[in-house]
Amino acid sequence: MTEAQLQTHEWRQRLLATHGRLRQRAPLVHCLTNQVTVNFVANVLLAAGASPAMTDHPDEVEGLAATADALLINLGTPSADSVAAMQRASQAANRSGTPWVLDPVGAAALPLRRDVSLELMTSRPAVIRGNASEIMSLTEAGAHGRGVDTQHESQDALTAAADLLAQAEGIAISGRVDRLLGRSTTDTGPLTISLAGGSAWQPRATGTGCALGALIAAYLAVADTPLDAMICAHAHAAAAAERAELTAHGPGSFAVIWLDALDSVDLTDFLSDRLALD
Amino acid sequence: MTEAQLQTHEWRQRLLATHGRLRQRAPLVHCLTNQVTVNFVANVLLAAGASPAMTDHPDEVEGLAATADALLINLGTPSADSVAAMQRASQAANRSGTPWVLDPVGAAALPLRRDVSLELMTSRPAVIRGNASEIMSLTEAGAHGRGVDTQHESQDALTAAADLLAQAEGIAISGRVDRLLGRSTTDTGPLTISLAGGSAWQPRATGTGCALGALIAAYLAVADTPLDAMICAHAHAAAAAERAELTAHGPGSFAVIWLDALDSVDLTDFLSDRLALD
Amino acid sequence: MTEAQLQTHEWRQRLLATHGRLRQRAPLVHCLTNQVTVNFVANVLLAAGASPAMTDHPDEVEGLAATADALLINLGTPSADSVAAMQRASQAANRSGTPWVLDPVGAAALPLRRDVSLELMTSRPAVIRGNASEIMSLTEAGAHGRGVDTQHESQDALTAAADLLAQAEGIAISGRVDRLLGRSTTDTGPLTISLAGGSAWQPRATGTGCALGALIAAYLAVADTPLDAMICAHAHAAAAAERAELTAHGPGSFAVIWLDALDSVDLTDFLSDRLALD
Repeated sequence: MTEAQLQTHEWRQRLLATHGRLRQRAPLVHCLTNQVTVNFVANVLLAAGASPAMTDHPDEVEGLAATADALLINLGTPSADSVAAMQRASQAANRSGTPWVLDPVGAAALPLRRDVSLELMTSRPAVIRGNASEIMSLTEAGAHGRGVDTQHESQDALTAAADLLAQAEGIAISGRVDRLLGRSTTDTGPLTISLAGGSAWQPRATGTGCALGALIAAYLAVADTPLDAMICAHAHAAAAAERAELTAHGPGSFAVIWLDALDSVDLTDFLSDRLALD
Repeated sequence: MTEAQLQTHEWRQRLLATHGRLRQRAPLVHCLTNQVTVNFVANVLLAAGASPAMTDHPDEVEGLAATADALLINLGTPSADSVAAMQRASQAANRSGTPWVLDPVGAAALPLRRDVSLELMTSRPAVIRGNASEIMSLTEAGAHGRGVDTQHESQDALTAAADLLAQAEGIAISGRVDRLLGRSTTDTGPLTISLAGGSAWQPRATGTGCALGALIAAYLAVADTPLDAMICAHAHAAAAAERAELTAHGPGSFAVIWLDALDSVDLTDFLSDRLALD
Repeated sequence: MTEAQLQTHEWRQRLLATHGRLRQRAPLVHCLTNQVTVNFVANVLLAAGASPAMTDHPDEVEGLAATADALLINLGTPSADSVAAMQRASQAANRSGTPWVLDPVGAAALPLRRDVSLELMTSRPAVIRGNASEIMSLTEAGAHGRGVDTQHESQDALTAAADLLAQAEGIAISGRVDRLLGRSTTDTGPLTISLAGGSAWQPRATGTGCALGALIAAYLAVADTPLDAMICAHAHAAAAAERAELTAHGPGSFAVIWLDALDSVDLTDFLSDRLALD
């Protein structure tokens, strides 16, 4: 076994142990998320082994964000009240050291969300995750989308993601191939992981993208690094999606069986076969 | 083949082509809908082949309503903010020519919703859809209901619907038999289509009515006429419901399998057998 | 047959008749509930045989709470607007004699919810239901929780529940063993029913707790006493959960099949085997 192989083997073992810790510790994940998928995201967290708390009352979020094991902020359906809650929650998380994930849903198409996202980023999210258009929209060059779906492939956003590593420890770009970027400890540029897999049914069921943000938050509570958290979350979602696809008859049954699979899936095979360590 | 048969045959071919265009073009449907069924409605649109965008932030809706392919406004859970958003969105849609659907959920029982609906109607919806009590409540004579379920059969609302054709190009009354009214080009009164079908499970799963409004909006983006859009939406929903009923074990599995069927159902048989062209 | 056995037999017959009346009358249940589970709770009520109405607009709730057959107030995701609506709805219900259920979700962990709950209790709920921590938090001694899950077993909350019977006619504590307390007519302390059953999947699907509050409200509309309503609701939920567990493959399919079972389950066996009348 070469040193590189050995490191890879050890990394996989560490990721599997991280997955085990999620189920064992059931971290409390505070979610400020959107009204469309809030039920589904809560069920995703419960199925994966975490404990969700979904309040967005401005007077409740500071206390909860400070004491929760992780925080998710998802911009899918902002309101004046929920944006105020997001600001207070992200600041409380930053003060208390609660790791948090920013999911700038729709930021590529809707300027209000881009502005809110940029402001929230001053509270130092551990991870920013989105599709390629959303990630690109957060850099100066920007990008324009339509609705909440991406107009770009994940690799188009690699430069933008590398720039954003100045403001977050990890960037996750979801797409046909997911790209996960973490800071290198050796200053040789970002560590980039490519992860191919999942199911074509995922974009046909609302909330599967939002679920990735929630899963990253859950894993941040038990992982050694933000990169580990992103890999575990994306591998967990993709492995479960591949299993669900085997018996799903359409987008409705896919979403249901995906929840079943999030509960029971074993990540060993997936991490052995699919994880490309660049 | 008589001339009437020929026209009917051509119409069916046109409706099937409209269904094909929905899947091919995946129109962006902006929904200002209610908090109870927003997740389900998004999944219905995705399953049927459209692309949903559900924001109701007052500062976002004008831009989205102006650029979306269609707009749905559903009054299921109004709030001060969402009503303001509905007003801005409907006006933007009217200015930009975005076709839009009004679904006055609960207007028969709750005066606030009737008042809001009447005001929104000044922005010229392409289609108004509801159950018989809701449609009747929008005319001067009015009608009274309790909760959000109808107290009337669809045929009771035919006169009210004909009157409302002065304010919308199409009126869809859902019920055991759906009644779909479009403007005639020959000034001989409205064209009325009766469509019987679907499943008794539909009213037992929340959101199946809201889904009709969303599907009509989606089809407005690809149909030649509002009447075609209403027929396609109701036929699509009913054909999928009949297929779902074959394997459903209750209201929970019905809703899931209905989503599966919305994705895969073929409308040919349904349009041949059930469509009564009066 | 002893007198005690006879009374028990008659009670069971009365409970089965109450279940029958729910399906027959389809009571209108007004729900002021949380954004996470509002869709699921509506589907639970429809599956069980009731008719849900979910508006929380402050200007609509008074009229609806006064005319509905029962009211549920669930504190899962409070907002300034929804708290105002809860206050108006509970007062209207109290004035009109509409029986109502208070579900103080999260009151053990989040002081705002405890304060709102205590204020709402001045409008005399028929039943207060929650997990042990939530019930304990409503008494002076209080209790502290984290998130929305309980830190206590149901029996820990029996003293607190007995105290709360001064402010409500029934207290339901959900847990591995449910404890249901009603006022005794003979002044010999509360009547306490223990009910063991259900499925370990229930806490793994969001909304199964909220569903209990909604079911109690529905049964209050057709039951002879609040205690009967609580027993029917908990038995209905547990019997359906046990049936769902037989074919569920995980938390996603469990929730779907549970809805199916709520529609079709027969309570005869469950009420014969499990109901412990202390």
